[in-house]
Amino acid sequence: PRSKLPNVGTTIFTVIGQLAAEHRAINLSQGAPNFPCAPELIEHTHQAMRDGHNQYSPMAGLYALREAVAGKVATLYGHHYDPEHEVTITASASEGLFASITALVHPGDEVIVFEPCFDSYAPMIELQGAKVVSFKLAPPTFAIPWDEVAARITPRTRMILLNSPHNPSGAVLGDEDIAALKRLTAGTDIVLLSDEVYEHVVFDGALHHSMSRYPELAERAVVVASFGKTFHITGWRVGYCLAPAALMEEIRKVHQFAMFAADTPMQYGLARIMQTPSHYLGLADFYQQKRDLLVDCLAGSRLTLLPSAGSFFMLASYEKISDQSDSDFVQTLIREHQVATIPVSAFYSDGTDHRLIRLSFAKDDATLRAGAESLCRL
Amino acid sequence: PRSKLPNVGTTIFTVIGQLAAEHRAINLSQGAPNFPCAPELIEHTHQAMRDGHNQYSPMAGLYALREAVAGKVATLYGHHYDPEHEVTITASASEGLFASITALVHPGDEVIVFEPCFDSYAPMIELQGAKVVSFKLAPPTFAIPWDEVAARITPRTRMILLNSPHNPSGAVLGDEDIAALKRLTAGTDIVLLSDEVYEHVVFDGALHHSMSRYPELAERAVVVASFGKTFHITGWRVGYCLAPAALMEEIRKVHQFAMFAADTPMQYGLARIMQTPSHYLGLADFYQQKRDLLVDCLAGSRLTLLPSAGSFFMLASYEKISDQSDSDFVQTLIREHQVATIPVSAFYSDGTDHRLIRLSFAKDDATLRAGAESLCRL
Ligand SMILES: CSCCC(=O)C(=O)O
Ligand SMILES: CSCCC(=O)C(=O)O
Repeated sequence: PRSKLPNVGTTIFTVIGQLAAEHRAINLSQGAPNFPCAPELIEHTHQAMRDGHNQYSPMAGLYALREAVAGKVATLYGHHYDPEHEVTITASASEGLFASITALVHPGDEVIVFEPCFDSYAPMIELQGAKVVSFKLAPPTFAIPWDEVAARITPRTRMILLNSPHNPSGAVLGDEDIAALKRLTAGTDIVLLSDEVYEHVVFDGALHHSMSRYPELAERAVVVASFGKTFHITGWRVGYCLAPAALMEEIRKVHQFAMFAADTPMQYGLARIMQTPSHYLGLADFYQQKRDLLVDCLAGSRLTLLPSAGSFFMLASYEKISDQSDSDFVQTLIREHQVATIPVSAFYSDGTDHRLIRLSFAKDDATLRAGAESLCRL
Repeated sequence: PRSKLPNVGTTIFTVIGQLAAEHRAINLSQGAPNFPCAPELIEHTHQAMRDGHNQYSPMAGLYALREAVAGKVATLYGHHYDPEHEVTITASASEGLFASITALVHPGDEVIVFEPCFDSYAPMIELQGAKVVSFKLAPPTFAIPWDEVAARITPRTRMILLNSPHNPSGAVLGDEDIAALKRLTAGTDIVLLSDEVYEHVVFDGALHHSMSRYPELAERAVVVASFGKTFHITGWRVGYCLAPAALMEEIRKVHQFAMFAADTPMQYGLARIMQTPSHYLGLADFYQQKRDLLVDCLAGSRLTLLPSAGSFFMLASYEKISDQSDSDFVQTLIREHQVATIPVSAFYSDGTDHRLIRLSFAKDDATLRAGAESLCRL
């Protein structure tokens, strides 16, 4: 058949995951924890199943879970979303992003995207017959060139896609970025689609600059978040989405047909565990220790580490070790050194290669130590 | 915001579900069982969670579950799908339909749809910028007028959407339909998208005419099916999709970005329970008893029941009782008689009203008896 996505192959996460498994490599590639979730989350979910909560949940999500989300967001970011009309539980953050883009981006629209970025953004936009207007961010800071962005805004600019903490770089938005966003969008109908799946993983005491903190931005923002990343259950496929009612009405039209509803028993389990905020409030410290452990263990390596201010990820330059392309270097690492990482060029639509690899530290300490040991031998 | 789906409101299943809850009505509306699933399915899934299977599964699904599906389909329908390239586990049959339509239908294409049908089909097609070419089927047989269909096939006809057993009517495709499909599609590149979520619920010893039974159809068919409908777990959001590799490659491109993967622990639980075929082989008898119970209990009512050859549903005419529109009649039933059903006009895009209501018999016997009792009082 004629392809609607002729340039899309299998996502890098699948390719590397399979190769890592074949070579029994220590896996520092995907942002998927290899340590357990809270046992009580499993027990609550099991109880929900035994209590017979196995049929369709409401299309917008279990009300108790929507309330728990609204409560958390109000406490942390000060914005009150109405659980009835402004909070939707999605079957993963991926689905939230997909439903938002599908619902809000029309053929001929322009969507601003910053690269490197998650490899799903551009195809989701292209599927709508819209144009990706992309800006390349560069190491080591991955700062957004707001003046250049301002110059490229047109009446067709429909959406700006944001992601902080940033996958793959670990960069986070700061006050200047928020100020620029306010300036750029005031008086327009531009929607901010904000991928905040690592919202609770911001290091060194910094604040997470959620779009929901800033009323002028929240009124035009769709915030997408993940229970999988927060509760160490990336395979449970539950996320959520926050937006003003008029935007949410459109998003739900797509959600209700694309998925109908998220998983019921998991929503019950999550509604229970959300009542113990320490689970997510402790996450920044938890991952900061992992980041720091990995940095310490790599002190003796010939990699040059870039700073990570948030997320599960850290970038490393290997220019003192090899002049291979990053894809080839990643292959070498897996095949010859049994350690799996992700080439950063996979996050650029044109394959821009800064000779960087991405290390995931969402791994137990033994795995981080073992992976670092392999990398130190290079 | 400008809407991409200006004519779409909240799906009828949500509207009626909420109204039924408000009025504490006996709920014969949605195709969601109110009885438990097999306890061992819950225990297998719980065990998978405790064993740490809580992270991303492979994008195309847990291999063991894909193998189990391929094995079942080979046994029942004689077609061998390759689990590697031709079977994908989706996050619900809804997602399977959505990913298939999104991947395969291009702007300007025409898609043939038979009404009455599930209310998601037309919006999913319209979202692609494609044209819905619809044929209205009429009670009592809901037979497809193949000659008329043949006359409307053009070079732009990209897909025919099929659904057997049929929601809402309970009609099933027969040999003449299969023959017509072969005739109509031979030599074309038309894709058959076949919603077979009620595949195991065909009554009176009849065969399910899966597209996968017929090589000339299977080579152009995408078959979408549901674990939720088969194992009484509509809230678990796991389905699957079968297609020749070239079609599946495109479907997976959308699936990997729209959802990435289905729920991991549920896939483990399902892979285990699929090893006991009696669970699905016994389903036809199980639901036939429910259908027959409902028919018996309604013998004294003034409703006229239409025959149901499969699915969870049966239609009833109320013309001896009321001359209200079917929507109004359903409202009256909920508000004044505390019994919830679905108006069949909701399954026609233009609201064609045959004065029919849809009764779901996916309910425990006490509920069926109580619902019928209310209906007998009319
Ligand atoms: C489906 S991969 C999701 C994101 C992630 O885990 C990664 O970037 O590694
Ligand atoms: C999301 S509703 C799915 C189909 C169904 O259960 C119905 O038609 O009642």
